[in-house]
Amino acid sequence: MIPELIVRLREIVGSEHTLLEDIDAYGHDETEDFWYPPEVVVRPRTAQEVACVLRLAADHRVPVTPQAGRTSLSGGALPVCGGIALSVERMNRILEIDGRNLFCVTEPGVVTQVLQEEVEKRGLFYGPDPASRGSCMIGGNVAHNAGGPRALKYGVTKDWVYGLQVALPSGELIRTGGKLLKNVAGYNLTQLFVGSEGTLGVITEATLKLIPKPRFAKTLLAPFRDVIAAATAVTRIFEARIIPCACEYMERAAVEAAEQRNGQKFPVGHGAAATLLIEVDGNDEEACEKDLEKIAGICMEEGAPDVFLATDADKRAAVWALRRSIGEAVKSISAYREEDTVVPRARLPELVQTIREVAAKHGIAAISYGHIGDGNIHVNLLRMGLDDEEWKRRLEPAVQELFERTIALGGQITGEHGVGFVQRRYLPLAYPKHHIELMRGLKRVFDPQGILNPGKVLPDEEGVAIPERHRPRGTTTT
Amino acid sequence: MIPELIVRLREIVGSEHTLLEDIDAYGHDETEDFWYPPEVVVRPRTAQEVACVLRLAADHRVPVTPQAGRTSLSGGALPVCGGIALSVERMNRILEIDGRNLFCVTEPGVVTQVLQEEVEKRGLFYGPDPASRGSCMIGGNVAHNAGGPRALKYGVTKDWVYGLQVALPSGELIRTGGKLLKNVAGYNLTQLFVGSEGTLGVITEATLKLIPKPRFAKTLLAPFRDVIAAATAVTRIFEARIIPCACEYMERAAVEAAEQRNGQKFPVGHGAAATLLIEVDGNDEEACEKDLEKIAGICMEEGAPDVFLATDADKRAAVWALRRSIGEAVKSISAYREEDTVVPRARLPELVQTIREVAAKHGIAAISYGHIGDGNIHVNLLRMGLDDEEWKRRLEPAVQELFERTIALGGQITGEHGVGFVQRRYLPLAYPKHHIELMRGLKRVFDPQGILNPGKVLPDEEGVAIPERHRPRGTTTT
Repeated sequence: MIPELIVRLREIVGSEHTLLEDIDAYGHDETEDFWYPPEVVVRPRTAQEVACVLRLAADHRVPVTPQAGRTSLSGGALPVCGGIALSVERMNRILEIDGRNLFCVTEPGVVTQVLQEEVEKRGLFYGPDPASRGSCMIGGNVAHNAGGPRALKYGVTKDWVYGLQVALPSGELIRTGGKLLKNVAGYNLTQLFVGSEGTLGVITEATLKLIPKPRFAKTLLAPFRDVIAAATAVTRIFEARIIPCACEYMERAAVEAAEQRNGQKFPVGHGAAATLLIEVDGNDEEACEKDLEKIAGICMEEGAPDVFLATDADKRAAVWALRRSIGEAVKSISAYREEDTVVPRARLPELVQTIREVAAKHGIAAISYGHIGDGNIHVNLLRMGLDDEEWKRRLEPAVQELFERTIALGGQITGEHGVGFVQRRYLPLAYPKHHIELMRGLKRVFDPQGILNPGKVLPDEEGVAIPERHRPRGTTTT
Repeated sequence: MIPELIVRLREIVGSEHTLLEDIDAYGHDETEDFWYPPEVVVRPRTAQEVACVLRLAADHRVPVTPQAGRTSLSGGALPVCGGIALSVERMNRILEIDGRNLFCVTEPGVVTQVLQEEVEKRGLFYGPDPASRGSCMIGGNVAHNAGGPRALKYGVTKDWVYGLQVALPSGELIRTGGKLLKNVAGYNLTQLFVGSEGTLGVITEATLKLIPKPRFAKTLLAPFRDVIAAATAVTRIFEARIIPCACEYMERAAVEAAEQRNGQKFPVGHGAAATLLIEVDGNDEEACEKDLEKIAGICMEEGAPDVFLATDADKRAAVWALRRSIGEAVKSISAYREEDTVVPRARLPELVQTIREVAAKHGIAAISYGHIGDGNIHVNLLRMGLDDEEWKRRLEPAVQELFERTIALGGQITGEHGVGFVQRRYLPLAYPKHHIELMRGLKRVFDPQGILNPGKVLPDEEGVAIPERHRPRGTTTT
């Protein structure tokens, strides 16, 4: 990178926040062991600084990879083309919690759980609840339209974002939306930026909806003989006009991985093929309890031999801690590839069957769990004892077939993890060429020089390919 | 229009659906008395026909104005540049009501109330509830991101649209989204089309979320001494953790206009400066009644001398019929201009005060009512005895000032009616030039020839202006 550029970056964000050394950590997110250290890291403090960095990068056609909590599971935060890593970690202030209008305004570097806890102290509630909430940040949540278990009742991040400030490669800042529940003044740029994975602009501020915090939550755990029985129970819960705030599915191997890693057991369902974790919430405790009883009845009618009711806070926390640990537990078994399949809810048993068939056909171990109420299943394909070559040889056709069959079920290649770096080659399975060309057209409107998070979302143009780079074995970065 | 084009249109949609005569009705929507008859009306039956018409029009650079129920209040459905009016009225089938996945799939020409009633027969619920639901259509609702009173709890149309099929000027059809509660595969084109007012593509099919229909609804009417007391009550209702499904505000003149037109009186609040209509719903009747009692208590603490509880279906229907008639009642008083201001909820009393000040300053009568829970107030500026010249002279600076002051309150120029034809000249009050240029860039990606609903959303480019055309006095079209 040309020295003049470094000088200018130092002028914009300060020397102490223009890092050239000890920046290995900025080369990875939580996607397998991918590793692409940037040439320089900048840590701006203000929106104006972000805009100046983008303008400078655009003038010099240097890639910029926006980074927040670097918890992406699709390689969204990897600087795959080198250049500048732009970390929003210092833009970490909650600017306002407005209890009268029920909105908050926050910088992008605020950790999601910090925001949740701050608003909850005031009796308020922010719905999205990604599993990585302890380390992911609002800017990344918005850029990737993060989901989580509560999406079933409360929607995903896009449903809570009502306004943004965004820095563009032109060096301009724009504001979209506001503290407005209704707003149809022009095209909905807010929703276009949500989920655009840092390829259209860098989010420098977000206005997020809040609601009054539900007073009570009640949780239930139910084991089933198979996923079909579990899915039938879920359908019947909705038919009983109950909308749970979470409805999680864990197959046996996922349960066992979590139990082993934590040295703790789930209170019911040992050896069950499919366990459901269901939660209801609301402001009327009796109404919540009535709903929970109805759900328990439905589960037992569908063959659950027993159910566990976690009606107090400690029991709920213990069950959720185990559930939340599944991702890491499964990934600690072996090298892996995680996919994030999603189908219409009622087709979930077919998806689970598809996953098993594809894994068996290609000789790969697979463990599945996820959000059964949303039809969103995380599939971990495990390398286990396979050597490099064999793993690669089996993996690619398996993933391709899994996605083709998921799409044939009315599904998509990613429900909440994003396309990022690792799924973009499969985007042509999801959309025809002219559809992807429209997306390229949108990209050019916002980022004509193509500097913003290059190598993400859109598949490579012909003749261009970014080589895979992995962390050297035996090294760790934190 | 060249005869060859008419021949081709007849080949595409059939002679009996290519109309050249008796098409005055297609020249207006519900925006004042604006009147722009198209040169030809086509009424395609299929998405493929729509796509072929668009391709033909693009090749010949002939304007196409998509039309659904023609209930727009912003001139969105007016063929202001002549050319082809493309009515989706024959695409009026509900294709699927999927109770297991809780989605429905519908063509764009289905009347909103018809869809509501069909899903309700199956115990399901579609949230958006625009006042014109008896004649507006889903295609127009999606294109304009229609709102309505239930938005407070259930959101606006965008929150229910999960998938679209859209015809483009390239002659291609694209599908976005699907029956998927989570989906982050690529840019969110679904949400970009929602609210784009037919300027980016023509919606040929929509996949809409459903929920189980809430079993019970309870309604309350409360009169207040002023809008500040009414707004304080609304804030306190949310602080009590109650989210009503509607919270409507009517000022005295609006109440009186509705009462006079209907020959019926609201059961309480005669002479009150501000009346609130508040509704709660849910599946637990006791919980609903508890909430309603709490709301009644709050209203009386804020000075409501009495409240009326409409707890049975007949009383609720009567109250709502009066509320729904306000729009027409107010507009029947005089020629008018309707504006659709929106601010953060807690600033609503300031907005109401602003409306009064602006109207008084410019010597114009004004009547306000709307969705106080959303901060969305409809302002009818009434011509009354003013002559043409004086009305025009006073109106424009009044509207300009109203919008400037609304934006200064953190608000926007339209909450749910759209920018359309009549508000687009004010868009530069809402956004700086480079922001509007981004919107123009998006428009060019989808519609490079500029044939789709020209003269809408985006302000005129310099040197181009579309003259105002009004229906000749004494004529009516239906």
